[in-house]
Amino acid sequence: MIAIINPNASVSMTEQLARECNALSGLHHELTFHRCAEAPASIEGYSDGVSAAYWVAHKVRQLESGATPPSAYVIACFDDTGLDGARELTRAPVLGVGEMAMHTASLLCQNFCVMTTLERSVPILTRNMHHYGMASRCAGIFASKVPVLALEQDPDSYQHVLNAARQALESNRGEALVLGCAGMGQWVRRMEADLSVPVLDGVRIAVTFADAMVGLGLKTSKVLSYQFPEVKAAEPTSTRG
Amino acid sequence: MIAIINPNASVSMTEQLARECNALSGLHHELTFHRCAEAPASIEGYSDGVSAAYWVAHKVRQLESGATPPSAYVIACFDDTGLDGARELTRAPVLGVGEMAMHTASLLCQNFCVMTTLERSVPILTRNMHHYGMASRCAGIFASKVPVLALEQDPDSYQHVLNAARQALESNRGEALVLGCAGMGQWVRRMEADLSVPVLDGVRIAVTFADAMVGLGLKTSKVLSYQFPEVKAAEPTSTRG
Amino acid sequence: MIAIINPNASVSMTEQLARECNALSGLHHELTFHRCAEAPASIEGYSDGVSAAYWVAHKVRQLESGATPPSAYVIACFDDTGLDGARELTRAPVLGVGEMAMHTASLLCQNFCVMTTLERSVPILTRNMHHYGMASRCAGIFASKVPVLALEQDPDSYQHVLNAARQALESNRGEALVLGCAGMGQWVRRMEADLSVPVLDGVRIAVTFADAMVGLGLKTSKVLSYQFPEVKAAEPTSTRG
Amino acid sequence: MIAIINPNASVSMTEQLARECNALSGLHHELTFHRCAEAPASIEGYSDGVSAAYWVAHKVRQLESGATPPSAYVIACFDDTGLDGARELTRAPVLGVGEMAMHTASLLCQNFCVMTTLERSVPILTRNMHHYGMASRCAGIFASKVPVLALEQDPDSYQHVLNAARQALESNRGEALVLGCAGMGQWVRRMEADLSVPVLDGVRIAVTFADAMVGLGLKTSKVLSYQFPEVKAAEPTSTRG
Amino acid sequence: MIAIINPNASVSMTEQLARECNALSGLHHELTFHRCAEAPASIEGYSDGVSAAYWVAHKVRQLESGATPPSAYVIACFDDTGLDGARELTRAPVLGVGEMAMHTASLLCQNFCVMTTLERSVPILTRNMHHYGMASRCAGIFASKVPVLALEQDPDSYQHVLNAARQALESNRGEALVLGCAGMGQWVRRMEADLSVPVLDGVRIAVTFADAMVGLGLKTSKVLSYQFPEVKAAEPTSTRG
Amino acid sequence: MIAIINPNASVSMTEQLARECNALSGLHHELTFHRCAEAPASIEGYSDGVSAAYWVAHKVRQLESGATPPSAYVIACFDDTGLDGARELTRAPVLGVGEMAMHTASLLCQNFCVMTTLERSVPILTRNMHHYGMASRCAGIFASKVPVLALEQDPDSYQHVLNAARQALESNRGEALVLGCAGMGQWVRRMEADLSVPVLDGVRIAVTFADAMVGLGLKTSKVLSYQFPEVKAAEPTSTRG
Repeated sequence: MIAIINPNASVSMTEQLARECNALSGLHHELTFHRCAEAPASIEGYSDGVSAAYWVAHKVRQLESGATPPSAYVIACFDDTGLDGARELTRAPVLGVGEMAMHTASLLCQNFCVMTTLERSVPILTRNMHHYGMASRCAGIFASKVPVLALEQDPDSYQHVLNAARQALESNRGEALVLGCAGMGQWVRRMEADLSVPVLDGVRIAVTFADAMVGLGLKTSKVLSYQFPEVKAAEPTSTRG
Repeated sequence: MIAIINPNASVSMTEQLARECNALSGLHHELTFHRCAEAPASIEGYSDGVSAAYWVAHKVRQLESGATPPSAYVIACFDDTGLDGARELTRAPVLGVGEMAMHTASLLCQNFCVMTTLERSVPILTRNMHHYGMASRCAGIFASKVPVLALEQDPDSYQHVLNAARQALESNRGEALVLGCAGMGQWVRRMEADLSVPVLDGVRIAVTFADAMVGLGLKTSKVLSYQFPEVKAAEPTSTRG
Repeated sequence: MIAIINPNASVSMTEQLARECNALSGLHHELTFHRCAEAPASIEGYSDGVSAAYWVAHKVRQLESGATPPSAYVIACFDDTGLDGARELTRAPVLGVGEMAMHTASLLCQNFCVMTTLERSVPILTRNMHHYGMASRCAGIFASKVPVLALEQDPDSYQHVLNAARQALESNRGEALVLGCAGMGQWVRRMEADLSVPVLDGVRIAVTFADAMVGLGLKTSKVLSYQFPEVKAAEPTSTRG
Repeated sequence: MIAIINPNASVSMTEQLARECNALSGLHHELTFHRCAEAPASIEGYSDGVSAAYWVAHKVRQLESGATPPSAYVIACFDDTGLDGARELTRAPVLGVGEMAMHTASLLCQNFCVMTTLERSVPILTRNMHHYGMASRCAGIFASKVPVLALEQDPDSYQHVLNAARQALESNRGEALVLGCAGMGQWVRRMEADLSVPVLDGVRIAVTFADAMVGLGLKTSKVLSYQFPEVKAAEPTSTRG
Repeated sequence: MIAIINPNASVSMTEQLARECNALSGLHHELTFHRCAEAPASIEGYSDGVSAAYWVAHKVRQLESGATPPSAYVIACFDDTGLDGARELTRAPVLGVGEMAMHTASLLCQNFCVMTTLERSVPILTRNMHHYGMASRCAGIFASKVPVLALEQDPDSYQHVLNAARQALESNRGEALVLGCAGMGQWVRRMEADLSVPVLDGVRIAVTFADAMVGLGLKTSKVLSYQFPEVKAAEPTSTRG
Repeated sequence: MIAIINPNASVSMTEQLARECNALSGLHHELTFHRCAEAPASIEGYSDGVSAAYWVAHKVRQLESGATPPSAYVIACFDDTGLDGARELTRAPVLGVGEMAMHTASLLCQNFCVMTTLERSVPILTRNMHHYGMASRCAGIFASKVPVLALEQDPDSYQHVLNAARQALESNRGEALVLGCAGMGQWVRRMEADLSVPVLDGVRIAVTFADAMVGLGLKTSKVLSYQFPEVKAAEPTSTRG
């Protein structure tokens, strides 16, 4: 079983996630979907991310201690919220949708653009991009200024994002577009037709590759970086009495 | 008032922190000390950090909503746990002790070494180092393999850390030593005498510079990266009924 | 159909490749195997690579003009010989085994080692590693000094490569091992047991992910870098008569 | 005592420097101000810098051999003219105003802009920025094209620099502004009000932090890079007679 | 004797090359000119490059086995097609015209622009630029969109390229222009007069420096990267019978 | 005429320089040799460099204002002391011997080592190496710990440097050796024979290439970075009366 964790609390985004992933054919493992009910309704900026990462770790611990721990995990937020913490808690592979979309884009072109929601997400994604090694292959991370929750509610949001994507590609010699928010995944085919370049949705990619990695027997290394957490010695009784 | 937040739950480490900082002379602002009682007893690895960052943000929100919000914050863990999240929640400057020790070392020499506790902290500090821009000035981040809580309890730990530091400096042309754990700050003078290079303790440096920054009127930028968190629209009633 | 192209001329290596890939379960597409009969018997160094890249392009042109062009290609040499040229000649995704092993290793750990055959391959793989963005995640590329063709013929070669791998991991804080030659893929399970870290064989990974990418509808971008070759105007009759 | 060395010969700029620094409250050490009378009237380009660095070293040697050598030095030119040479000549900490402004900006935001005077200074500051490790945090170094000496004489210069700063911030996602010339320090509050982002003047920052560093007992490392100059053996009598 | 190899098949470009090089005065070695008759008529993109590199290696092998092997080689295409492969096949120095133009530009200014022909060449030259270490000195690689073969046939092409060069220099603070195609070498003086910055033609530079390197006794290192190709053991008879 | 400037005061090193350069055959321009009599006897560290750079600029100004200004300059110290300042003062090309040795080594191999004199020179050369773009091609800069002036006086110094070079090459996969001090140029052939890799002496290379660059009509760009120094307005009478 592959656990797909939505780091935010949104019921409708989790339902959309399930619809998209359940439409994938050819998978070899069951998918389960989990939202972080105590986390913010969307992940926009650092402190939302800090909160969501906490609940992602909580969810992974829950699933790991369950009767049948997942064979793989997908973190379904383009910020890859809590990815490293999750990897520490399991032997199963854990993939982030931002990470997978960027790596995969680098296999299809030399120079891709990322289109995210708010400008405040750009420095977060930029730091991720550097950590993944994708800085030399990414022509830029751009913000459409359409908030996450408006993506599904505002009928004009598609056109806004499309226009921003077209301009980003043209001005930066972009050869493919990465959708920089899990909530944009509904648009992948339509936008690919409108832009005539590959358009990548990290959710579908991460779920499919997680499924493939289980088949290949690939597991998170438990040496050094991602070894299981230390067991803490109890602190001696405080000297303050 | 300057709030010094220990991201872990340890009473004794917080007490030691207070002793060291209260011994600093010439400060212009009162210091207050805060531990994160629900966080792990020490921060060793990613998932400890995820948890501690959550409680750091909680503490900052508490202090900000208090009668007299702090003029500055210091995050007193060498991992700079939750630093970006904290900056988003306040206009006051927020300094990390790892960050300040590394920047300051780069002002005193061309090539410094960092000596931390466990090997699992090395990739975390390495990523921070890259983000701070210190990669070209750091000759290496090394682990003494002495756990955080042993630093104050095991009488042999000083000699272990000293030997590891000496070897790191000699093998890597190091010109100064950064103590890579807030718990090592007690040793700064003794180790400086033993090694004949500058030895930097981020806690004293961060507190003193935070005090200076308040005097200079410097504040966290609230444009783009660290703007205050978004106010979330309430999610419409779930379609699931 | 997925075409797996061995850029060298070796019949036995191509047969071994077929055995390993045909043992993969769960693929959704037929696999075909192709060697480059006019290329060198193994790819060791730049001029071998120049020759093999020529024949890889030739093979891709042949397959593209066939009745049923492949849905995806895998270049089955760790040097990823001729990868960019091949991508220019097709809309199908084209994956290199070196590229896929390195990207995937970066999903399972922070810091991997690559073990290849001869020292002369190290600068070639290093340049690839930089181009893929993997330099910050790779702890080093090491040569076992066992030539490609000896891998299958010399009974001692496993132990030589294992020893070299163990030393590389220990001296460089390696958390996973990437097998840096398609001919080492036979050892993946045995070496994983001996080293207690994930061991990655690019061939299985590239084939499985190529299969997944076809399912996802992902294609090589035909904008800018990988657009189809220019049609050349005929040169006017030489002025030399 | 903290010695503030203006690397150029300008009397009026040195006087302005003294006014600004003497207005700082809360310092623990006396400030002395020194200009380099034989140096150029302003530092604009490489050869001005070569000359000024010579006289800065001369001034440091003079001060070091005086009755009460300074406890710290500040080089009060944004080019940090002669900084490394000065560090070699003393155990006291030596801070450059360019260096300190850039490091401090990186503590208040993710992405700052630098506004300097002439375009010819941009490559010099760029090289410094790389050496300090600030390249990944700096959104660009921009020239207002207002010469140093015009800053205090031309009444329109404030508006010119303000306009250039506003455009630089908007076009480059800047979150704070670093004033890239010691002569602009007079404008720091006014410009902060006009731009609504933190505006940093390296002079005040460097002086305050130098004062703090003395209190912390921090000293320049005398190992390797900044050891005291070699004593030269006298050259044997020339063979030319 | 210095062998100048045109990696493409064009007779007229090879003749133009000979005219330009034979006009160089002060050389100490005879020049010979060679085209690759089986290669594409011009090198535009990856697959053209793969083909041309093959024929360059063929030509070098031919020349090396001749009665008087060349003392040096010049690869006369700005893509430096087949450069590494050629170096493996000879002890003589081998210079690429792209490589030499970029290195030399970095000796005359801090920040140069490259103007090439088609956009598809930009990623190829970018990767070369990174490999040569010139990324921090190059303000950008720009495409005039005039195809190689049009350079000599279309009377308007000079003006198109000049306009593109002027705009690239102005928008990117360029201080010198590198002509990014061997076929532009005819324009070097005219364009230098029109642009008032140094204009560099790699062909003349590479030929002159190759001549100088022979005089200095400099040779390609035959250790590790560029050692002569391996002699392959014959493959044992196939098991397929 | 090509002016070769020894940035230090040593008569014997300048004489040796003249002997080596006058032995070069095939140059097209007269060579003149200049020492900086007021500079230190050798350049070892930052403050020596600051002083020598001052006198180099003085010498260039003198030569430029002479009856027949040089057609090119060579700065004959491996630190390339005062190189940028000199370029600002002339239209002629100015080459540094460190710069030319590193660039040329990158044309003969993938990975070279530099062997200099004292450890204090390593950070200076490292910063130059980064500025020249050679960091990715240099396997390391090593110090033999033999001081500059001992190179010609101590009969054991050759063997010390040879041993250090051999170890550096073997431990770092070095493919060529760059002699990191103008005073080592006497040993180039002997060391090449002893090490079996190319050994590069920057002096001969820089002089030969400067000669070639004059022939090619290449000149320092006078746009932006290296434009001639500003003419300073006289400072108005001090307000201090």
